[in-house]
Amino acid sequence: MTEVTERPRPERWRNYRSAAGGLQEYWYPVALSRTIRGKPRHTKVAGHEIVLVRHDGKVQALSDRCPHRQVPLSTGSCIFPGHITCIYHGWTFDLKTGQLSAALTDGPRSPILGQVKVRTYPVEERCGLVWVWTGEGKPIPVEEDIPSEMLRPDAKCFYLIREIDANWRYAVENGFDEAHAKTLHRSSLWTLFKRLPAWHETEIVSSADRKWITRKPLAVHESDDYPGLGRWPTFKPWQLKRKNAAPNTVSVRLPCTLRVAQAGSFGWSEFEWYAPIDKDKYRYFQIAVNWPQSWTSRAAWFIRYWTYIIWFHHYDFNNQDIRMIKQMPDSHPEHFFRPDVSIVSWRQLAEKARDFSGSDQANSDNHAPAHVTLQA
Amino acid sequence: MTEVTERPRPERWRNYRSAAGGLQEYWYPVALSRTIRGKPRHTKVAGHEIVLVRHDGKVQALSDRCPHRQVPLSTGSCIFPGHITCIYHGWTFDLKTGQLSAALTDGPRSPILGQVKVRTYPVEERCGLVWVWTGEGKPIPVEEDIPSEMLRPDAKCFYLIREIDANWRYAVENGFDEAHAKTLHRSSLWTLFKRLPAWHETEIVSSADRKWITRKPLAVHESDDYPGLGRWPTFKPWQLKRKNAAPNTVSVRLPCTLRVAQAGSFGWSEFEWYAPIDKDKYRYFQIAVNWPQSWTSRAAWFIRYWTYIIWFHHYDFNNQDIRMIKQMPDSHPEHFFRPDVSIVSWRQLAEKARDFSGSDQANSDNHAPAHVTLQA
Amino acid sequence: MTEVTERPRPERWRNYRSAAGGLQEYWYPVALSRTIRGKPRHTKVAGHEIVLVRHDGKVQALSDRCPHRQVPLSTGSCIFPGHITCIYHGWTFDLKTGQLSAALTDGPRSPILGQVKVRTYPVEERCGLVWVWTGEGKPIPVEEDIPSEMLRPDAKCFYLIREIDANWRYAVENGFDEAHAKTLHRSSLWTLFKRLPAWHETEIVSSADRKWITRKPLAVHESDDYPGLGRWPTFKPWQLKRKNAAPNTVSVRLPCTLRVAQAGSFGWSEFEWYAPIDKDKYRYFQIAVNWPQSWTSRAAWFIRYWTYIIWFHHYDFNNQDIRMIKQMPDSHPEHFFRPDVSIVSWRQLAEKARDFSGSDQANSDNHAPAHVTLQA
Repeated sequence: MTEVTERPRPERWRNYRSAAGGLQEYWYPVALSRTIRGKPRHTKVAGHEIVLVRHDGKVQALSDRCPHRQVPLSTGSCIFPGHITCIYHGWTFDLKTGQLSAALTDGPRSPILGQVKVRTYPVEERCGLVWVWTGEGKPIPVEEDIPSEMLRPDAKCFYLIREIDANWRYAVENGFDEAHAKTLHRSSLWTLFKRLPAWHETEIVSSADRKWITRKPLAVHESDDYPGLGRWPTFKPWQLKRKNAAPNTVSVRLPCTLRVAQAGSFGWSEFEWYAPIDKDKYRYFQIAVNWPQSWTSRAAWFIRYWTYIIWFHHYDFNNQDIRMIKQMPDSHPEHFFRPDVSIVSWRQLAEKARDFSGSDQANSDNHAPAHVTLQA
Repeated sequence: MTEVTERPRPERWRNYRSAAGGLQEYWYPVALSRTIRGKPRHTKVAGHEIVLVRHDGKVQALSDRCPHRQVPLSTGSCIFPGHITCIYHGWTFDLKTGQLSAALTDGPRSPILGQVKVRTYPVEERCGLVWVWTGEGKPIPVEEDIPSEMLRPDAKCFYLIREIDANWRYAVENGFDEAHAKTLHRSSLWTLFKRLPAWHETEIVSSADRKWITRKPLAVHESDDYPGLGRWPTFKPWQLKRKNAAPNTVSVRLPCTLRVAQAGSFGWSEFEWYAPIDKDKYRYFQIAVNWPQSWTSRAAWFIRYWTYIIWFHHYDFNNQDIRMIKQMPDSHPEHFFRPDVSIVSWRQLAEKARDFSGSDQANSDNHAPAHVTLQA
Repeated sequence: MTEVTERPRPERWRNYRSAAGGLQEYWYPVALSRTIRGKPRHTKVAGHEIVLVRHDGKVQALSDRCPHRQVPLSTGSCIFPGHITCIYHGWTFDLKTGQLSAALTDGPRSPILGQVKVRTYPVEERCGLVWVWTGEGKPIPVEEDIPSEMLRPDAKCFYLIREIDANWRYAVENGFDEAHAKTLHRSSLWTLFKRLPAWHETEIVSSADRKWITRKPLAVHESDDYPGLGRWPTFKPWQLKRKNAAPNTVSVRLPCTLRVAQAGSFGWSEFEWYAPIDKDKYRYFQIAVNWPQSWTSRAAWFIRYWTYIIWFHHYDFNNQDIRMIKQMPDSHPEHFFRPDVSIVSWRQLAEKARDFSGSDQANSDNHAPAHVTLQA
């Protein structure tokens, strides 16, 4: 049983509250692989200004500030293979090490050589995305931070990437939030033919590997009688009752990753990252994944995504979420109710985020609760 | 005799200076009655975020923040009669009491019931306007804060309502300001055929009920000789001298209300509220009032307003004021001169604004000066 | 030998660092002479809000705030010769003395007379420009702050004046900066047919009158071999080697003045002022000067400026500089290298800026170094 009425208390969720700009010791997706080529490109993730550039097929990431006068290296170019040259005074850095290889405008024997370097960031490419490790610690294998379903060789992913002007934490909380879909999304086109229920009884369970926590509906109340108000909701005639209409399965994990296993005969999953850019912005990755086993089902998946999912789910449906997330004022008072067990559990998980040593506290048995229930 | 040379002194007009966001224990107009219907509408007055909605013919006002996650209730809707439901998680509040009637997505027996409510605001409708009481104290009758001339059943009011990016206090001071019309408005179309005088000798007198203070011209100097400069002003040939051309009578009262009784055969009055939205914005109500006693004079008033007053007075003439008000820097040094007796008297009146007990200090004899003169 | 590796140290260049809004005891250009006429015009220089107006052929400058309510006098007008009248309440100031001559709306015998005045600023006109002295001290002759080449009667000047959103000091530093032209400007149209060298050995020398410091190239390395990178730069076939291709001579002086004596048979000079408006903005004067001795050379200079210099140099070439200047973050860490001897020398010069007594410390022998070399 989790306490669900909460006024902001600074001593609760201390790590989570201080991570306004993002948890640091993680791999984050930053861009589509195919958009990073030989021309330097700027990005920002979890507060880090980064320049990305591809050399010899491999993406390199450096701090996007020349140590000389802090001009962005991304306005420069790679005039020497394997190096990036600042446009302002020609300081030239090795893409792999970040070491200053030459200060062109001071000649080959410049005394500055060997004295400066820029920070490099570990980079990997998986699933068509570029991933950057923002931590101070030694990076763990990138596969540890990517859901295994996406790493399957038969996974076919479609991406929508947007920058949203809001804090990433409200986005994660909205994503894993138990209750809002039943009111907010009732007016979406995505749910036009669905019978969204009135309320669920829910418990939160951990995955076997302790990475995910999942909302598990214990009982579904399709509609109910509310004293003084009447029955709610009422359904439209075309919202037919279906047998065995299993609900979607919604899970969340660190650092900012949502998974919605869509119910139904044509199974697919939605993966979302609310990757922090800084405390006021996040990069919203909406990734629809399917594992088609034939050319026909692959074609069907392609058509289904481009004619339906991207418009009805990624734009119309998820834009309703974005409107809410943007309206949340900073450090507002909160008054939790029972379905907020989902948010409380997420915050508890985030409290145990990976630290500088690279160890994942959420994986240690003495911290992660196997499940959190909310039935009194 | 009032001291009229003034450098900012924090100890003077303490209450007035601290009321940057508006005096609180008052009724404020917020919107035209006919614009508030069954769909919730957001407004803001004196720093209060408020949702307005009409139910059973009566306008209700609640704090426009759901206590759950602070999402504006005005983005929700009234799916149950007499209640407003937050769009995000279905928290449903009684419009009259602000009590939480249901948390839809947690079922009819949600433990949160009886634990939260939102603030409600007293609302009245008079003169075609919605009025909201922003005070903490018990509201006084709304008629106490509306000029009696507007409450007359034969009053015909025309409204122009605008939001201005400036502090409300500079607007009131400009409205009651003795001197500026004689220079600033000399170029307006409204005064094209009028002989604006050079200067007045003025005293400030209180009304019998101590609500209004009024500028009373003691002597009018149509033009004068200024040493080293010459005669000022000179009039255009078409600015004819008229016999018995009485000046307008300008009065002000709390909280932010101006009355200009227009001189002339076709008598009408301008009422203005500079209703604070917050410290950087005010809602400017420009209300032209006449009391026509026949259908023909009513039609004449209609035509006069729509062909002349709104364009020449409310826009062209008053826009000159707005330009000045917007240019006043915050907490600037001031150097008062004799005509500023009007501003000094207004600040003295504002010092005695209604307090939390609902008592109006300006009505007690020992505080309100019967009149302030400025002739040395 | 100057130390060239530098992390920000608050104790270094104390005066320079504190002059974010501009050095004060100097003459600054503010506008083209022909743009200041009988109608008051607002300007801002080194943090001073100023109203400029021409009377009897002479430009007058006053503080652009009426002491009454701080409304800008520049919104007023000169309804009496030799005076400016505030539009709001008719306070009328003598343009020469700043004394209040009348408060029109309080009559000729207003008690405020003799009690207030506004600050006046010394103004001069030279070289087609209006110059304002912003100092508290007694102004020195304006000719002391204008390069003598511009004061020559045969000087023909062309002006481009722009407002740039950046701090003036980064602009001066960029202007006198030794190294950046060799990388940043390599892509400009201005240098399309020029062989920009790889690097210079440089020393900084003072002029005989100690006003200017000049970059003096000791040795020019047209291209060089950089270990691990190769030869740089390579030239295009149309970038022909020219005999005796002397480099431009670049000098800087206080308060914010650059001189580039352009090499070549058709000699001309570029003068630039990065005149501070406030700490976030400067007014960029780009002045191309020639001294034609015949009508034909005067016509040639006219054609050369309007067909070539303004487009290729003032816009295309200098816009590259502006892009860098705007990208410099405030109080960023710096890491100097050898060519930054130019910037170090400039900061040392700025440390010795004129003070309130009007004395120019840079002119005293014990402060100004005759020259600074950078060869170890």
